[in-house]
Amino acid sequence: MDIHDLTRKLHVKNDSKIVMLVADGLGGLPMRVGGKTELETANTPHLDRLASRGIQGCSIPVFPGISPGSGPGHLGLFGYDPIKYLIGRGALEATGIGFELQDGDVAIRCNFCTLDAAGNITDRRAGRIPTEQSGPLAVKLRRVKIPGVELFVEPVKEHRFVVVLRGSGLGGNVRDTDPQATGVPPLDPVAEDEASQKTAGIAREFLVQSREILSDQPRANFHTMRGFASKPDLPNYQEVYGLKAAAIAVYPMYKGLARLVGMEIVGQAQTLDEQIDQLAQCWHEYDFFFIHFKYTDSTGEDGNFDAKVERIEQFDGIIPRVCELQPGVVIVTGDHSTPSFLRNHSWHPVPTLLVSDCCRPDGLAEFSESSCIRGGLGQFEAKHLMTLALSNAGRMGKFGA
Amino acid sequence: MDIHDLTRKLHVKNDSKIVMLVADGLGGLPMRVGGKTELETANTPHLDRLASRGIQGCSIPVFPGISPGSGPGHLGLFGYDPIKYLIGRGALEATGIGFELQDGDVAIRCNFCTLDAAGNITDRRAGRIPTEQSGPLAVKLRRVKIPGVELFVEPVKEHRFVVVLRGSGLGGNVRDTDPQATGVPPLDPVAEDEASQKTAGIAREFLVQSREILSDQPRANFHTMRGFASKPDLPNYQEVYGLKAAAIAVYPMYKGLARLVGMEIVGQAQTLDEQIDQLAQCWHEYDFFFIHFKYTDSTGEDGNFDAKVERIEQFDGIIPRVCELQPGVVIVTGDHSTPSFLRNHSWHPVPTLLVSDCCRPDGLAEFSESSCIRGGLGQFEAKHLMTLALSNAGRMGKFGA
Repeated sequence: MDIHDLTRKLHVKNDSKIVMLVADGLGGLPMRVGGKTELETANTPHLDRLASRGIQGCSIPVFPGISPGSGPGHLGLFGYDPIKYLIGRGALEATGIGFELQDGDVAIRCNFCTLDAAGNITDRRAGRIPTEQSGPLAVKLRRVKIPGVELFVEPVKEHRFVVVLRGSGLGGNVRDTDPQATGVPPLDPVAEDEASQKTAGIAREFLVQSREILSDQPRANFHTMRGFASKPDLPNYQEVYGLKAAAIAVYPMYKGLARLVGMEIVGQAQTLDEQIDQLAQCWHEYDFFFIHFKYTDSTGEDGNFDAKVERIEQFDGIIPRVCELQPGVVIVTGDHSTPSFLRNHSWHPVPTLLVSDCCRPDGLAEFSESSCIRGGLGQFEAKHLMTLALSNAGRMGKFGA
Repeated sequence: MDIHDLTRKLHVKNDSKIVMLVADGLGGLPMRVGGKTELETANTPHLDRLASRGIQGCSIPVFPGISPGSGPGHLGLFGYDPIKYLIGRGALEATGIGFELQDGDVAIRCNFCTLDAAGNITDRRAGRIPTEQSGPLAVKLRRVKIPGVELFVEPVKEHRFVVVLRGSGLGGNVRDTDPQATGVPPLDPVAEDEASQKTAGIAREFLVQSREILSDQPRANFHTMRGFASKPDLPNYQEVYGLKAAAIAVYPMYKGLARLVGMEIVGQAQTLDEQIDQLAQCWHEYDFFFIHFKYTDSTGEDGNFDAKVERIEQFDGIIPRVCELQPGVVIVTGDHSTPSFLRNHSWHPVPTLLVSDCCRPDGLAEFSESSCIRGGLGQFEAKHLMTLALSNAGRMGKFGA
């Protein structure tokens, strides 16, 4: 029995609104011993005021010591056990470029590569061919036609593109054709199970045709196929929580992740302020709102401590507008930490704040890494956050009599 | 491997005594932002003194955000994973009225209802017929006789009564006959699996006979059957912990839950003071003592903050008498929170205190929701409490060499 077996049975409906504000990569580190983190350095009067009414704690994205990518990071926040629900690489890549996967689709990451006359790979990334050249080449591969299956070829960036197969009876369990070495030919796409035989056959035929189409290219004269993956089968928000959920995000990846759990993608906001405009606009149409802010992560990945501080202050600035809408529950969190010090996603617990009229405030008046250690939510796995949100919104019945 | 696979192998015996004091629904909330909880408002010098010798923490009954009923709440405290061990509705109802279920019994919750001449339900609760009338009617149903099975019919309250079937080969997986609607006839009791065919057949025959017996009644001229449930199969305290355990409770429900895990029900105390008299009396006969105090929960459910405060002070008053007996381990906890603010069981962690001569005190001098956040036990799932109790009592060997 997992969390959703409980929420599926216990959730009830009411008129409350839940807002989950995700500052991507929110958690940080000091740059030197005795220093402050980005969040502690930032001037965040609104978050601190929220903290004094709320309860905070440390969200552990997966397990202690595990640094998640965006996929597992967000699945955890959305209440999906990130160990149980895996999004295959192909499906995540397709999601990241905004491709709307349908049930039964198989997505494949492809890399342009260079073959020599003998058919051996001399460059596994075709010299990191620039996007201006690789994009049109990927589009050219749309000429591939295979009876009985619909094919989508979508450019990504540099040597990368995505192929999606749509049809019946397509398993997602096919071995990579990338040999992870040069001087050898690409591998055959081999089905790992019976259900994936048809997929492997289609991939093989695709490779025959694409080799022909690319044969006149100087560098990108072939491609490998990797990370075959079916669309992940995630139970949706309406079913497991009884929530009509809206995602207000700027980047395709986060829209895509939200779409996978059944959220509706609302609006086309390009800035954080526009996201909050959108929130206000659709306020009466949804129960749950996921707002994604990217730049706390990207500045952390750049190792730009000061820029991350600024982005956190920008994020702080939207809090009054969110509170004006009088949500029943507000959550402020991140999908993982991205300390500027590490220039990367990290395993550190994420400062998380929950505010409702029945949240049992913990008396802390600042929202920060240091505070959340002493917060009333303690240290908890991110996957429990949605259950807390529902209960604080009065949307959960009692378990057992 | 679950906790009991460990305790079963690792427990050792000695002469120590463990006392678990359960103030039902102990945890609370402030009535307004910045206010104090019931426990923080109460004057509890004895609990606070105990706290200064002990270690406290936040017990999570099931998972974060899950509000448990009494069944899962107590199973957790007793060390049984409340997600793994489910007590069916019928079994809990029988337990709640003090009926001693035996292995293989199937218990069924029944509601008197009103049928019209066409056999359709016009009232699913027979106008909430008062207990004075429904009790004798339930007793009248003891006339039902079915060969090969022993039948028990026990009045509960208003329109509710319980039927227990005792015999061999009775599965507990039968569908409710309550259609959850009026204007339609009751449903047939349909077996959900092969092992429950016999049970369904007996239920069907019961309904034929009871309909005849009730036919002259103006309102309660029939009844539905719901929540079919076998006696849950819980490993017992002696086997999993090596503890001879006594339950000293006032209400049948808590005696029943304790009986399900193999505790002996001791005495017939009607007040908290009498419970402690009983504790002193049977002190040398048992290793473990479960003392249940109901009124911290019932006052919370009434939304009566002041009354809950008073009940907590009453509970505080017994601490010196418990300590006089010099138990090796004292635990003070609740099965869940029942904040007066919510008038209901809630998901909030329960303040929990453990005192022994080796508990590693955390230096906190007050027992409260605010203190326990900073306590040495941290936030932990209630199911781990018994293992802590055993170890603090010197009753657990080492795991692995």
